[in-house]
Order: sequence, then C-alpha cells, then structure tokens
Amino acid sequence: MNFQDIIRKKRDGRSLSEDEIKYLVKGISDGSLPDYQVSAWAMAVYFQGMDDRETRDLAMAMAYSGDVVDLSFIPGVKVDKHSTGGVGDKTTLVVIPLVAAAGIPVVKMSGRGLGHTGGTVDKYASIPGFQVERGFAEFIRQVQQVGAAVISQSGNLVPADKKLYAIRDVTATVESIPLIASSIMSKKIASGADSILLDVKVGSGAFMKEQQEAEKLARAMVEIGKRAGRQAIAVLSAMEQPLGRMVGNSLEVKEAVETLQGRGPDDLLELSMVLASYMLILGRKYSSLDEARCCIRNILDSGQGLAKFQELIEAQGGRLNYNQKSYGLAEASIKREVITQEGGYISGLNAYMIGHTAMMLGAGRERLEDRIDYSVGIEILKKCGDFVCPGDVLAVLHLNCENKIEAACRQIALAYEINPEQSEKKPLILEVIS
Amino acid sequence: MNFQDIIRKKRDGRSLSEDEIKYLVKGISDGSLPDYQVSAWAMAVYFQGMDDRETRDLAMAMAYSGDVVDLSFIPGVKVDKHSTGGVGDKTTLVVIPLVAAAGIPVVKMSGRGLGHTGGTVDKYASIPGFQVERGFAEFIRQVQQVGAAVISQSGNLVPADKKLYAIRDVTATVESIPLIASSIMSKKIASGADSILLDVKVGSGAFMKEQQEAEKLARAMVEIGKRAGRQAIAVLSAMEQPLGRMVGNSLEVKEAVETLQGRGPDDLLELSMVLASYMLILGRKYSSLDEARCCIRNILDSGQGLAKFQELIEAQGGRLNYNQKSYGLAEASIKREVITQEGGYISGLNAYMIGHTAMMLGAGRERLEDRIDYSVGIEILKKCGDFVCPGDVLAVLHLNCENKIEAACRQIALAYEINPEQSEKKPLILEVIS
Repeated sequence: MNFQDIIRKKRDGRSLSEDEIKYLVKGISDGSLPDYQVSAWAMAVYFQGMDDRETRDLAMAMAYSGDVVDLSFIPGVKVDKHSTGGVGDKTTLVVIPLVAAAGIPVVKMSGRGLGHTGGTVDKYASIPGFQVERGFAEFIRQVQQVGAAVISQSGNLVPADKKLYAIRDVTATVESIPLIASSIMSKKIASGADSILLDVKVGSGAFMKEQQEAEKLARAMVEIGKRAGRQAIAVLSAMEQPLGRMVGNSLEVKEAVETLQGRGPDDLLELSMVLASYMLILGRKYSSLDEARCCIRNILDSGQGLAKFQELIEAQGGRLNYNQKSYGLAEASIKREVITQEGGYISGLNAYMIGHTAMMLGAGRERLEDRIDYSVGIEILKKCGDFVCPGDVLAVLHLNCENKIEAACRQIALAYEINPEQSEKKPLILEVIS
Repeated sequence: MNFQDIIRKKRDGRSLSEDEIKYLVKGISDGSLPDYQVSAWAMAVYFQGMDDRETRDLAMAMAYSGDVVDLSFIPGVKVDKHSTGGVGDKTTLVVIPLVAAAGIPVVKMSGRGLGHTGGTVDKYASIPGFQVERGFAEFIRQVQQVGAAVISQSGNLVPADKKLYAIRDVTATVESIPLIASSIMSKKIASGADSILLDVKVGSGAFMKEQQEAEKLARAMVEIGKRAGRQAIAVLSAMEQPLGRMVGNSLEVKEAVETLQGRGPDDLLELSMVLASYMLILGRKYSSLDEARCCIRNILDSGQGLAKFQELIEAQGGRLNYNQKSYGLAEASIKREVITQEGGYISGLNAYMIGHTAMMLGAGRERLEDRIDYSVGIEILKKCGDFVCPGDVLAVLHLNCENKIEAACRQIALAYEINPEQSEKKPLILEVIS
C-alpha cells in the first residue's frame, strides 16, 4: 500500500477502504508515515469529507491503536458522558451522582480543559484532596463499590488520535466533522463504555457555532456508535450564554453542590435532568423519558444525589466542608463587581468572551502546560432576559491579580448586549439525536 | 505572522497577501516552516486555487529564494524555451540553433528528465564529449560568441521551489495549476531570460491530459510573465502520440540532426518551425508570424541551422561524426522489430506507454539517481493515420538487455490502436496564448 495513493484517492473524493484506514492509523501510531503526508491527507478530508463507514473505521482503528479498557466484569450497562465543551458547563458533576444513585454504573475518563472551556477533571481536581490520577484496579473497585468514578485520561489510550490531533491542531484541519467525530468516539470506545451520552453544545461559546453543523457532528457520532456496537444518544444544547451562573473551577463545584441541594440555577438543573434521564435510558433502566425523569427527580429531591456526590468525592480522597460558606474550596483574594452603564434588557451574553476572560484570570489553560488557579473565575449575576438599570452589578470577578482587573472588566462589559426591548427567550435543549 | 492562520485563510478560499507568500517561501527555504504545515497549505491550494496576483507573488518569491542569473550584459532580448514535457520531444535541439542563427541569443538552463518524458539535458549529454555542467562565466562567454548555450540547472537556483516540489511530489499536491505555473515560471525568472516561449503539451503522453487544463496552465504562466515583466507566449501542442519517430536519447539527437538537414518527420519539423518563429517574435526581431516563419525557413534551407547546431555542439566539447550512419552516437546492441498481428488504420498510439517503455529500457529515469543508457530507445515506424497489414513492423526496439524484449514488445503492441476505418487526423498545434 502506498500512502501517496491513499492521499490522492481521498483528494479525488473517493472512499478509503477499511484496510487503507488501518494502514493510515498504524502509520500514524508507529511513526512510519511522515507528518507531512498525514497533514495533506487531513486537509483532503477537510475538503472531501468521509462517509459513515470510513468514519467508523477511523474511530475503531484509533480506538484500538493503544490500550482498550475492558469493563465487562462490571455488571450492567456502563454509560459514559461526553460534552463537546462549553462555558460554565459543570453538568457532569451533577449528572454522575444522579445516574449512579439510580443504579447505573458510570465510568468517566475525562481530559483536561484547554482554551476558553473548562475541563471536568480540573473541576474535580479543585476539590481539596481529590485524586484524579488513579490506578486502573482502584478505579474499577470504586465503580463496583460507589457506582461511579472519575479519572484523568492517561496511559496508552488512543495514541493515534493524540498524534493526529497534534498535527491537525497546527495545520488548520481541526474543523472537519468526520475527524472530530472519530476523535471523540475513538476515546469513548477505548474507555470501555457500552453506551455514550453526547452533550453537543451549539453557539458562540461552543466549538460548533451553528445548529446545522452541530447536528452533522451529532449524527456522525451516533452513527459511529451504531456501527461500532455502542448505543449513543446526542443532546444538542444551547451555548450562547454560559451555563448556570458560575465560571471557574471552585465556583463551579460550589454551584454543582447547590444544584444537588435543589438550589441551583434553572438552566443547569434542566440540562442535568435531561442528560441524566437519557443516561438511564441508555443504561436500559427505563424506556420512556418521562419515567426516567421522575426517577431522577426523586433522587434529587430525596437528597440521594447529593449523598452519592459526597460518597464519590470521599472515595477519591476529596473533602468538602458544608459548614463553611466556601465548602472549604479555594477562594480568590479579590472580588470586583462589573457595573453596567446602560439600562435595558440583556439580549446577549457572549459565552466565548466570558470563557476567554475566565481563562485569562487563570481558570483555564491557553497551553496544555499552563497551571490553573482553581480559586478564580466569574460569578454571573445577570443573564439573558434580565432587566438592568445603569449602576447594576452584571457580574463579580474572582481573581488574585490586581493588574488583570481592568482588562477583565472591559471584556465582560463587552460580552453583554443590552437592548431597550425584551427579546424572545431561546430554548436550552435544541434537539435529541439517537 | 502565524503560518497556521495562513493555511486557514487559504483553506477558507481567501487570497494570501504578498507578505504572507514571502513569509511562506522564506519559511520553506530556511526550513523554519515544518513540512507538515507546508503540505497542508499545498493541499488547501489544490482545492482553493490561487488568483493571478498570488500566483505571480509565489513565482517571484521562489525565483528570488536563491541565486538569480543576471544576463543584462548580453545585448538583446534573451529568449528561453520551456516544454512541459512530452515523449520524443527533441524540439529544443532543433529550435535553439534556428533561433540563434537568426541572431537572437538563447540561454537554456534545463533540468534532467524524470519519468516517462526525457530531459533536454540528457539528450545533449548523449552526444560524445558534450559538457552540460559548466561554469557560469564560460556559459556567458559562449552565449556571446555562439549565440546559444545549454547547461544543466545547478547551483543555488530556486531552492524554495526544489523543497516545495519535493513535498508536493509525495503528498498528491503536484496537480495544481497555480503551483505548477509558479514552479515553472520561478525557474525561468531565476534563469535570467527576458522572454519565455512555453510549449505546453496536451494529451495522453503529457502531464496535462485535457486541453482545457492545459489552457488554464498556459494562461497562468503567461499571466505570471506579464505581472513579472517577462513576455511569455504559450503554444499548446498535441502529445497523444510521440513527436517524430524516435524516442531515446541518441536516437532523438540523430532525428534532430536529420530535421536540421531537411529530412526530419513532418510533425517535429512543423512544431520546431512554429516554436522558433514565436521565439523570433519574443526576441523582437519580427512582429508578424509570417515574416518570422520565412526567416526560419531560410535558415533551415540554407543549412545555417545545422551549422549553428554544429557550432553549439563543438563549443560545449561535443563531437558528431557525419560520416558514420550513427553520427558516432552510442548504439544499442540489440534491435528487435515489433510486428502487428492486426491490419487496419492506426487510430491511436499512446505516447505515455511508449515513453514508459523507453524508460523501462533505460532511456529515462524512474528515480533521480537512476543512470541513463543513451543508446536505447524506440524507433517508431507507424504512426496515427498509417495503414498496416498483419506482419508489418510497427516499431523497432533498440536495447541492450535480452530479458526486457518480451515485456517491451507487448507494451508497444498495446500502445497501438488499430481500426478498420480511417479516423480524422487531429491538429498538432492546438492554440497559442499570449
């Protein structure tokens, strides 16, 4: 097989065979294919796409390019959850205990955050004592005992995906639906889950800005799942404004706890309920959404969700002190209010700008080697649809560095759009694809 | 400047600025841009193309990436000739002395042949004693004294083009009109010519299989010339069947000599006359094609062309012995006739297959490091439109290796298409673009 011919075939819009895709993935893994051929192929895929069969073959070949976790000795349908990344998205923290409390084992391997969206592993890691780097045996034991465990993706999982992504990242070939879909699904398949709930975010704060593109990605991932023998359901949710009111690691943990206590913001609660309900369906506990939702509602109202959250935290060495207002989480030394000069209805709150500001404050990473400050972030007091008068507080910055105040205040004020007329409220859940 | 943004810009179909193109070419030359980014950019160009201004900027930046030959101290308009490569294409050998004898200085830097088409430098090098590697001062002195000189492209000419081509060659990004056009023109501009005659071949034996594509390439090159202050004329000529009757280095030199003696095949003579006439127009000796053609006709008929050819050969150390039938050129030890089993009119003679067979016999290179056997080749006795009876000789193989006979005979027989009805004769000169 000649890789130049494979590039030409894709360039000319033809489908690659399973053997050609395996050859490609093996060449990426073992370094026998030079990067300059891989990047030319990726650019050809950007323009010509891949059909469903090719996308599945790529996902499977990447999944099996390294270790594949075997969870078959844990009884029941193991369900995983993946979010394409949003601002203020702490749903995983709320959803995992709700689903685990319903008796569905949840195995969650998660990556660290990069760019303007935070990573789930970073949020858990902001809990004092919480261990995200754990041995596989310990991880499995915890799933068996507690019903859920969260670890940082590590070891030799999907090495081909890691290498391919590193090349795509610097050659303007990230934005390709089949490449994104196969990258995500390869990780989920290698992580050993039987079923996968996909939370695909759409809007200014998401990777996918348009619903049509997000739909394509969702369909591609669900289709890979089907062809690979893994059931997947994709929920498309709005990411125009941040989810909930908190952005930043400690702040988001606090908001997740409050949501499990029944005091969380409506949008976070609603999305968590929907995602958790679909996970019960994926776990074959219920076949109707209504029944699943009732079950989750009961778990939440009875405090079983919060108890399971606490159990999970403790199992991984974490400590939260509910007697303190901060729950013992790291707090920033400076709090600064962002005041509006205008009055009117808030018609837009750019999630990307909020996420980017939070990253600048130290809540996220620009590069993978950057260190995170768990205590910093943004507390959002006014969201879309709210009415404000000049002088009202829009948001509160939590930070540790005086000289970032001015730029952050300016950027946050810019993220708000204020109009004299009230605008239509947009739905949170856009579509479900299965 | 960030090269990833440049790739993205091109990927999204936008034009790159002159500075961005200079940055790219500089990065290719000095190795600061990694090959995997260059190849992704080349693939983006394959899909999105480049406008005339970008193509000119790329050609100019590559031309000035290394040494640029200054010929300004040779009086008159210096004319260069470039062929996009055909099978049996020995026109340069005929054209240079005709043009030089008319008083237009011809400076010819030529590359070595690769693949199924032969290289001009290799043809000259098959003449015993002929030196193609010469110092620049000597080269210039010869142009001043003889009016023409031929050397192998060497030194630090267009290093960016060499590196870019090496990457394109293995990433299926060769077939891009703006990249081909800027590659050819960068070499011509760096070689110092004022005007350039482009012989763009079209057909099975050429790089461009379709006239429409060849037209695009011709227009792109002429446009680069205009924007770079170099007049260029492109002649599109048919390359469905080989040009003339000889394919292989010594054999082609012999045919060129016979053509200068007035005994050459019609197609080679006609194309040489047309190309030489346009070179006189480019050299501003005539403004009308008729006058230019009359001048070339006189030079040919009077024997001045042959005399100038002899002068050029001798100036570069070459020796031809006109008393011998072989002119003292290397002769192959085996001659084998290829016989037809069918009768009828020859309706097709696949130039690519003939060129490929000649290469297999040793007349050309598969890889740049391959050695050429000057003596081998194919003598074509029957061409399109000819009538043959079963048992007639189609062609004669000239070779030195018994065990290649069978495969070569088979391939040559396959290259012929024989039909009971006579088909229309296709024109040799398809179009002139200036």
